[in-house]
Order: sequence, then structure tokens, then C-alpha cells
Amino acid sequence: MKEFFTVTDIKDVFTHLRVFPETDKEPIHLLDALGRIIATDITAEMDIPEFARSTMDGYAVCAASTFGASEANPAYLTITGSIAMGELPPGPVRPGEAMRIPTGGMMPDGADGVVMIEHTAEIDATMLEVYRSVPPLHHVIARGEDFVAGSSLIQTGTRIRPQEMGLLAAMGLERIDVFKKTKIGLISTGDEIVSIDTPPGPGQIRDINTYTLSGQIMAAGAIPVIYGIVTDDVSLLHAACAKILAETDMVIISGGSSVGMRDVTIDAIQRFDGAEILVHGIPISPGKPTLLARVQNKALWGLPGHVTSAMVVFDRIVRPFIEKISGIDPACHAPARQIQARLTRNVASAQGRRDFVRVRLIEKENELTAEPILGKSGLLSTMLKAHGLIEIDRNVEGLEKGSMVPVILFS
Amino acid sequence: MKEFFTVTDIKDVFTHLRVFPETDKEPIHLLDALGRIIATDITAEMDIPEFARSTMDGYAVCAASTFGASEANPAYLTITGSIAMGELPPGPVRPGEAMRIPTGGMMPDGADGVVMIEHTAEIDATMLEVYRSVPPLHHVIARGEDFVAGSSLIQTGTRIRPQEMGLLAAMGLERIDVFKKTKIGLISTGDEIVSIDTPPGPGQIRDINTYTLSGQIMAAGAIPVIYGIVTDDVSLLHAACAKILAETDMVIISGGSSVGMRDVTIDAIQRFDGAEILVHGIPISPGKPTLLARVQNKALWGLPGHVTSAMVVFDRIVRPFIEKISGIDPACHAPARQIQARLTRNVASAQGRRDFVRVRLIEKENELTAEPILGKSGLLSTMLKAHGLIEIDRNVEGLEKGSMVPVILFS
Repeated sequence: MKEFFTVTDIKDVFTHLRVFPETDKEPIHLLDALGRIIATDITAEMDIPEFARSTMDGYAVCAASTFGASEANPAYLTITGSIAMGELPPGPVRPGEAMRIPTGGMMPDGADGVVMIEHTAEIDATMLEVYRSVPPLHHVIARGEDFVAGSSLIQTGTRIRPQEMGLLAAMGLERIDVFKKTKIGLISTGDEIVSIDTPPGPGQIRDINTYTLSGQIMAAGAIPVIYGIVTDDVSLLHAACAKILAETDMVIISGGSSVGMRDVTIDAIQRFDGAEILVHGIPISPGKPTLLARVQNKALWGLPGHVTSAMVVFDRIVRPFIEKISGIDPACHAPARQIQARLTRNVASAQGRRDFVRVRLIEKENELTAEPILGKSGLLSTMLKAHGLIEIDRNVEGLEKGSMVPVILFS
Repeated sequence: MKEFFTVTDIKDVFTHLRVFPETDKEPIHLLDALGRIIATDITAEMDIPEFARSTMDGYAVCAASTFGASEANPAYLTITGSIAMGELPPGPVRPGEAMRIPTGGMMPDGADGVVMIEHTAEIDATMLEVYRSVPPLHHVIARGEDFVAGSSLIQTGTRIRPQEMGLLAAMGLERIDVFKKTKIGLISTGDEIVSIDTPPGPGQIRDINTYTLSGQIMAAGAIPVIYGIVTDDVSLLHAACAKILAETDMVIISGGSSVGMRDVTIDAIQRFDGAEILVHGIPISPGKPTLLARVQNKALWGLPGHVTSAMVVFDRIVRPFIEKISGIDPACHAPARQIQARLTRNVASAQGRRDFVRVRLIEKENELTAEPILGKSGLLSTMLKAHGLIEIDRNVEGLEKGSMVPVILFS
């Protein structure tokens, strides 16, 4: 009944992930695009802006006509008209002339600068006093200064933020292609698990993992599909997996950390033609008894039953996998969200194992500290207190109190 | 035509925000709870777990029966039965006895420790050799070790993460009360603005702000309601605001940075009985011409027309306001997401003004650097390149190249 399984280092797990295909594309409305991953390269079809614009209320002028002007020695220009918002200027501006222009107004031909209204006075309807010298292009956004026609704007694999939505709006793209959200079927296994609407009897507990994992799946931009609880029976588990593989893009089974249940899970997987067990244990803590199989070219994960273990494995391994098959190009994004904080106590770690320690961030005397939350990986309370994880590498024996450590924030 | 308006410091703006009421509560399903703000205090109605559980596959024993056991000198215990998952143990365990127990199994009365299966051998069906001494509570989660009945679990104002979803599941709470999402009506103003499905004519530009702000509103956990473009006309703008106030919780007007348009906006607001202009300019850059009014006890914001200005004001001022009226209690959350990075060049700033400088984060030689993105606040491209903002306080003249600065990350 003893078991020694061959573990796969976390880096090699990511190598296995390369065999799985990316999700398909789908067109969506721009207003639904926040957080989605764009599936086409976007190129500027026109200059933005398409005309030189003023960035101030004032007067469009030839900059040279104001050179040397000051309070003591104003320049005098002839007012030749007013520019209305959203309309062509009534004519060009020549040296010695000025035309009233509002913020955002179109610069007239001949004008190459704007003098702010605060630095002028209208002597009468046609005569302007100017108290400042304006250099060329002052208070002007040039044609194409924001984006030049033909330039590359957004690359495939970029996660759409509000600013990307604005750019797509500027280009008039009301519908865009994005990668489909990955649908992930969830099963909780274990004869002790009851549905959350059922009061647990002796020895039973409610199904927590379906909810923590659903939350994590949604936070990762994917769609959880809940298939409920399956008891420790090979045929039932195989049938449930077959149904999920037919209906979704990926399977996550949680539970089965006991040797008996892990055997049931492996048997259920191996009943599929061509099933391949890619990973059978990862040298991390928590989360060692993690399974990854390829069935019908889809990923099937077996996560530990302990809630914290399952959450850590999801965050560090399954989430990056979802992002990869969802088309995300890491090169198009900000560096990973890690915060430096000072460790408040020593943390020990076993060599040969990568530890993920839950920490709480606390501001102390203007410094951010990371307080390790100790506790068994079956305790959900440790995840509630925590704001993130610190990672202790395989070859490190531990971290010292007072050292600065990078904290991987929970999303 | 000159105008000098009285500005309100950013801290005083937040003081004004206290007058606005929080949103109502609504019951939702637990699976819809991710990211929502809980509106009730949650107390443990029972111990979690409700019984002592094993965290390993092995044997439930009286710890004292194993004291002194080793490979060379095993303890011998009598196997009295097996515990099944989700069921009551078949009986108690007495000194000198052992009962087979799976991970997650219920501890029998009398047993206070678990010896891992790896440290044992079954000599026959009733005789167990034990090679390790186990201390009391070894590999056991005690009753109530995760959560004790009656203890406070989640406080009103907490944003629900996957782990809070798990806790609510553990308590059997399939429906919970959360604060309603704030509905925010959006208008873009300006005679030069055209809808994004319209090719812009000379002097016209597409309505970008509706899309950037919609994205920011969604990212802030609120609901954008789009009312389109209103031209620079007091009556039309007043009528649009009246409709939005009747249908949503808040109004955001963008555009109107020209003096003429700002006057139109103020006139439109003042036509409401009891309207109060609370803020008329904030000494920040970008974003100075920001308006806040209270109309019918709802907030009405006038944001600058320049896309970057509007985005920065939204991020630094409107978003915290939305979070406040959405019931968020900052004490229930991790410290703000700021990352330290090394500034790649000097940044100048005017005294008496708070500057928000857009920066791009770049990894260089294992260090995170912040590269200031220079460019006019009318340029959306500056926001596309940026990953976050650095803030330069009113009393600081600038920041030096090479200094470490906190970067406020875009959400």
C-alpha cells in the first residue's frame, strides 16, 4: 500500500503545457471587451488626430508673430475670426493675424501655435494684445501625434484595458475578435463531501473547493461549469469526465488526495483511449499530489483536496496555463504583480521542495511587512488572512526574518 | 472672458464625498459573488471542521502508544478496523490500538494522532508495526481549528475573493447580501465629438471617453450606462442630466474643458433646484478642470475632455469615491497596490500642484525600472504605453533619476 510517485519539477510542468492548443476566436462588442484577450493585430487606419488641434482656449497664431512679446512689450495681432468646435476654420492665418480657437478646435492653415487666452487681451473686436512669446507647436497636438496611420497599435495576445478600449473606439472598431473564454468543468470528489445546501452529517463536510475554484477560474478570465460531487467510484468518475470533456475545454477534479482516491482518479483517466498522464506529483508545498493528464487533447487536472493546496496549485500552475491557452502574450503586459515586503519572522523550508508560504501584508511604521501565516493546508482560514504568497526555491533552506521578499499578490 | 477658478485640494475633495449615501443592498447567489462587497457581518454558525479530521492516509492512534518507536525499535499496535470517508468511525481507539484512516477521515474517540502509512507496515490483518513516534495532534485538524463557532468571519465592506466564497460555502450560505453595483450614466459633450460608428469630418473626432470611462467604471465594479453625445447647449445638457439622475446613481460628463463648455456645464447643473457645486477645479496635473456637484443627493462629475486627464481623474478620485459609496471598508483589504521601481530619468513638477506622471515598468538587469512617458494629456498613446502612475506631491519640485518611487498600478 506504500506509494512513491515520480514528481515533475514545476518548470517541466510548464513544458508539458505547450502541447495543448489555444482557444478559438470570437467577435464581441467593444463594450464587452474589458479584460478580454485580443486575437488580431490592430494597425492604425488613419492618423489620430486627423488634424492639428489646439489643447487650450486661446488664439491660433503664427508663432513667429509673437516672438519677443511680453507684458511690457506686447505683440499686436489682427483678429480675423473664430474657429467653431467640430468645424473647418473660416480661413487661414497669416503672419500678424490671430483666430479665436477653443480647446480641441482645428488649427487653421498657416497657424503653428496657440497663445492661451490668459496671456492676451482683446483691445477691440479686431485687435489682440499678446503678452507671451509662443514657440512653434505650443499648445498644439499635431496631426498623427497620437497615432500615425499604418503604425502597429495593439498586438494579438494583449489583455484589453480601458485605454485599449479607447484606442479601438478612436479607430471606429465597434466589434473586435478576441480569444474565447476557456470553459472549465469542475468536479469535487470524495465520499465525505456534501453539497453546500446539505447540513453535513458526522464525518462529512461541505463542498468548498467547487466555490474557491469557481472564483479563481472567473478571476482568471475563464468560465467555471459546475458538475457537482462524484463519489469514489471509477465508473462514475470516468462517466463524469467523459461528459465534461464533451461539454467544456478542460477538467478540474479536486479531492482525491488519499491514496485510494488518487488511484480511482488515475483509473478513471486511463479508461480513456490515448489518455496520457503527464504529471503525477510536483515537488511543491502545499500541492504535491497534483495530477495532469491529456485526454482527447484537453487538459485534465487532479488537484489536492485540501482547500489551500488546491488554491495554491491553481494560482501558481493552472492559472498561467489558462492564460497561455487563452492567447495571452506575456510580452504585451506589465511585469508580474509582486510587492517587496519585509519578512516578520524566519521561515524554514525543506531542500528539494519549492514552498509557497501564505503571507499577510501589514503596514508598519511606513514599511510594508509580510507576516507568514502558519497553518495546515486544510485550513481555509490561512487563505482568508493572507494577501499573497512568497515562494521559497528548491535550493533554499529558508528565509530570514528582516529580509526583503517579493510577495506574489492574490488576484 | 478670462477665468480664475478656486481650486479644491484633492484631500478636501474626499471630504466632500462623505455627504453622499452608500448604495442599497441586494441578495445574490454565492457563485455571482466574486468581487462584490459583502453587506452583512458573517459569524461562524458552527465549528469548522465539525469533527477532528486526519490530514494524511495512515492510522489513528493514541499518540502515547507510539512514543519511542523507530525503525530499529518499532511499536506494535493492534488494528481494530477501518474508518470510511464521510462516516462515523466503527468505534473508539484505545492505547495499543490503531485504526486505518484516510486523508479527511473522522478521528475516532480516544485517538489523538495519526501515523502516516509510509511509517508503518501491516504484519497481518490485525498487527501494525510503527516506525515513528507521533506527537499528540500530529496530522490531525482539530474540531474548530479552522473556524470556531461564534467567531467573526467576514466583516461588512469586505470584497469577496475566491477564499471568501469558500468560507461562505463552508457555512452553507448559498445566498448572501452584497451592496448593489453603482449605476453610472455617461455623457460625452462637445460639438466636435461624433459617435464611433461615424467617420469623423474635418475638425471632428470620435467619442473615445465613453469607452475609456466605461472600461474604468466596469473595472471599479460599477455599471456604465451610456447616454451618448450631447452638444454644447445648456437646455439639452440639463435635460440629459435630468434623465440620467432619474435612471442611475451618478452622472459623469466628460469634455467641456474649454471655458465655453465649462460654463454650459455649470449652467446646466445650476438649473436643478438645490444643486451645489462642491468642487470647481483641483490642483492636479493632468485633471485640473474637474467639477463635482451634488444634485438630488447624487454626485455629478464634470471630467476634463482630454482622454488622459479624464482617465487619471477617474482613477485617483472617482474610483475611490465609487468604492466608498459601494460600501468597501479599506480596513478589510490588503494595502494599496503599489510597486517600487527605479526612476529612469529626472521628472520636474511645479510647486503647488500634484502631478501624476504616467510610467512604463521595464525589467532591467533584474531590477524593475519606471520609465516616465512624456506627452500631452490629449494623447491616448501615453496611457497605452503606461502601466501605472507616480504621484509627485504639491510640495515637491520633482523626482531624481535613479531614485526608488512607488508606482500606482492601473487596475
